[in-house]
Amino acid sequence: MAANSRLAVAAHIVSVLASNENGCVTSAEVARSVNTNPVVIRRILAALTRSGIVASEKGKSGGSKLARRPREISLWDLYKALGEERLFAVHRNPRNPRCPISCRMKEALGSAFASAEKAAEDRLKRISVKQLLG
Amino acid sequence: MAANSRLAVAAHIVSVLASNENGCVTSAEVARSVNTNPVVIRRILAALTRSGIVASEKGKSGGSKLARRPREISLWDLYKALGEERLFAVHRNPRNPRCPISCRMKEALGSAFASAEKAAEDRLKRISVKQLLG
Repeated sequence: MAANSRLAVAAHIVSVLASNENGCVTSAEVARSVNTNPVVIRRILAALTRSGIVASEKGKSGGSKLARRPREISLWDLYKALGEERLFAVHRNPRNPRCPISCRMKEALGSAFASAEKAAEDRLKRISVKQLLG
Repeated sequence: MAANSRLAVAAHIVSVLASNENGCVTSAEVARSVNTNPVVIRRILAALTRSGIVASEKGKSGGSKLARRPREISLWDLYKALGEERLFAVHRNPRNPRCPISCRMKEALGSAFASAEKAAEDRLKRISVKQLLG
């Protein structure tokens, strides 16, 4: 699974939990909705639990449920919880000190990329799980 | 090299070409500025040439030069030229027809992701190679 489809799976998981307000949902039940392996679900549930978006209960009637209301969870919260990479990375090659372009490039690109990422971030912040549920 | 640092290398390449207005630059010269292997440079130069951003000349004094003015090349043009993947992908698992969340999710996420991508795209469109050069 490519890194960037993890956000889609996380949003799907949280939507399933949001639609079951009265109890816990098992990873097997979530996996049936996402149509994937429960191992994939459990890995992402673990990241969401660490970030305080999901609460897990052990035992017979255990499973996962939301720790916050759907309207209080944005796509950006999920993106951060997954610890995803930057959308645009400045390359890691060391600068060539004898080339003025090389010396300038990383700073110029870093600031350009940061502004594009911020634009996407601001948009993801404005989309809540409640909105996904329609 | 991660897919998303190719944009940084492409921007660096185009900046080097932009700073040599009077002639062609070889991939070896560009590679010295980016501090990477000329093979990496040639691969990205090929994509930029296919998109009409760069022109290549063969022969002894051959090499690459810009086919457009630096102010007419945006970071978004470079991103498109590289044929990069979507920033956020909807997962490819088939929907579960018995689950209303599953049926709804791909469409809802597709539209949410498209709006975040559009925000980043609009920002990249407004940053030209001329601006990177300062």
